[in-house]
Amino acid sequence: MTTDLRAQLATHGRIDLAALDARSTPGFDGAKADGKAALAALGPELADLQERLYAGGRAEATERRVLLLLQGMDTSGKGGTIGAVGGLVHPHGLVLSSFGKPTETELAHDFLWRIEQRMPEAGQVGVFDRSHYEDVLIGRVRALAEPEEIERRYGAIAAFEEQFVASGGVLVKCLLHIDPDVQAERLRARLEDPTKYWKYNPADLDERELWDEYRTAYEIAVERTSTYVAPWHVVPAGRKWYRNWAVATLLLEALRSLDLEWPPADFDPAAELARLDGEGSATGS
Amino acid sequence: MTTDLRAQLATHGRIDLAALDARSTPGFDGAKADGKAALAALGPELADLQERLYAGGRAEATERRVLLLLQGMDTSGKGGTIGAVGGLVHPHGLVLSSFGKPTETELAHDFLWRIEQRMPEAGQVGVFDRSHYEDVLIGRVRALAEPEEIERRYGAIAAFEEQFVASGGVLVKCLLHIDPDVQAERLRARLEDPTKYWKYNPADLDERELWDEYRTAYEIAVERTSTYVAPWHVVPAGRKWYRNWAVATLLLEALRSLDLEWPPADFDPAAELARLDGEGSATGS
Repeated sequence: MTTDLRAQLATHGRIDLAALDARSTPGFDGAKADGKAALAALGPELADLQERLYAGGRAEATERRVLLLLQGMDTSGKGGTIGAVGGLVHPHGLVLSSFGKPTETELAHDFLWRIEQRMPEAGQVGVFDRSHYEDVLIGRVRALAEPEEIERRYGAIAAFEEQFVASGGVLVKCLLHIDPDVQAERLRARLEDPTKYWKYNPADLDERELWDEYRTAYEIAVERTSTYVAPWHVVPAGRKWYRNWAVATLLLEALRSLDLEWPPADFDPAAELARLDGEGSATGS
Repeated sequence: MTTDLRAQLATHGRIDLAALDARSTPGFDGAKADGKAALAALGPELADLQERLYAGGRAEATERRVLLLLQGMDTSGKGGTIGAVGGLVHPHGLVLSSFGKPTETELAHDFLWRIEQRMPEAGQVGVFDRSHYEDVLIGRVRALAEPEEIERRYGAIAAFEEQFVASGGVLVKCLLHIDPDVQAERLRARLEDPTKYWKYNPADLDERELWDEYRTAYEIAVERTSTYVAPWHVVPAGRKWYRNWAVATLLLEALRSLDLEWPPADFDPAAELARLDGEGSATGS
């Protein structure tokens, strides 16, 4: 439905999240059922390209790797997106990392220390459910570090990501954008359904009271770290079906950009076939 | 189609793999299309139970965890099984580990050291693509350790697994059983299709020449480590659709045995709803 959703959703410079309709569906012309069908239709190509990438990594024929990074306010659907998009590819080569409150050990290191350990290796598609951006989001809003340290981190993140891209990585950074009304609706659903209680934490309401502060922190982070090699994509996430389709499409476009070929044989297939045929009765039952 | 596939495929005491038809379909009455439909039909319950388990872990309401362990000769379909079964559940809470040739660091430790680090935590479903059994399989066939050490390992494995189960774990050990004819067919397919070259390694044929030695090593390992709390299931894997259905069914039966409930709220839902409703205009856009 669009030739390049990446270009359409990428953001550079200042952004105004309050002015962005969380229920809009840029790049998609259709309704819920169409969106679900369109997502499913992406599956085969997504699975094929991910397997090529994985094969290249296994064969040590490529340095390419992909990192899908998801950020967003509580209930923006990071987990749901991972379920919908992750289910389309083989679990092999999909490496999921969730970043919660840092441990004592993690706090004793630079904020990127725990991130570095979870970066995808050659052939892998890494998926980050939250990320190093927490350190300039809640880190800023809750003043978990000195202002100078927060300030330093924007540049450190940009440099870190640039290095990742320079060494063969592709970064797909998605901000799942919702507004307070969408969040209220989803928090209510969690509080009214006992099968969803586990997704709720009273602290979510405390953070919600700081909505404007978080929005500002996101706007600053996006402006400061949306670089040419690693731009941010703001994905309207008020409609789950659009969010899933959009993130899957962004991932697919990133994989397409790698021009992935199946790795060549590092052996002689004809000779191996002859060996297999010629084994005679050497192999018993 | 069967009330308990676990009981049907579990093995105790001596086994004779050469006498076991790799293309048989115990517990399933139907053909390929039926098997594929039956696998898909397991999806919703499998996903629901895995989410309950994951929720319990997240809420720190359970110590339960599951380990699906896959062993089998090259081409028996460990990766294919993981793709088919793993795709039915949410990537969250599914933790996949592949064990290849041990590193220098790993070799400097006991053979269970690297395994312990990858055991599933509360709420997780761990999946092992190969495992500690390699240390009594290739370890035995290739004499990678002294006979006394190999001998010691059977007991060490049984004790290790018993401890896992005693602390809330459930182990689903599957031996994907094929015969030399099935393997020849699948190796040939890899050698005749450039998109499958990456799955082939000339060393596979070297191992194939030791088929009988591996079969014996499997028979001994299964006999020595098929305990009451952690039995081995021998899954005929000559038909991929049956193998996928059988492993998914074994995993489902294991999850059912946990009687998983959604974790209770550790907050007052009504009070939280009142807080959400009462926030008035405090939260802006």
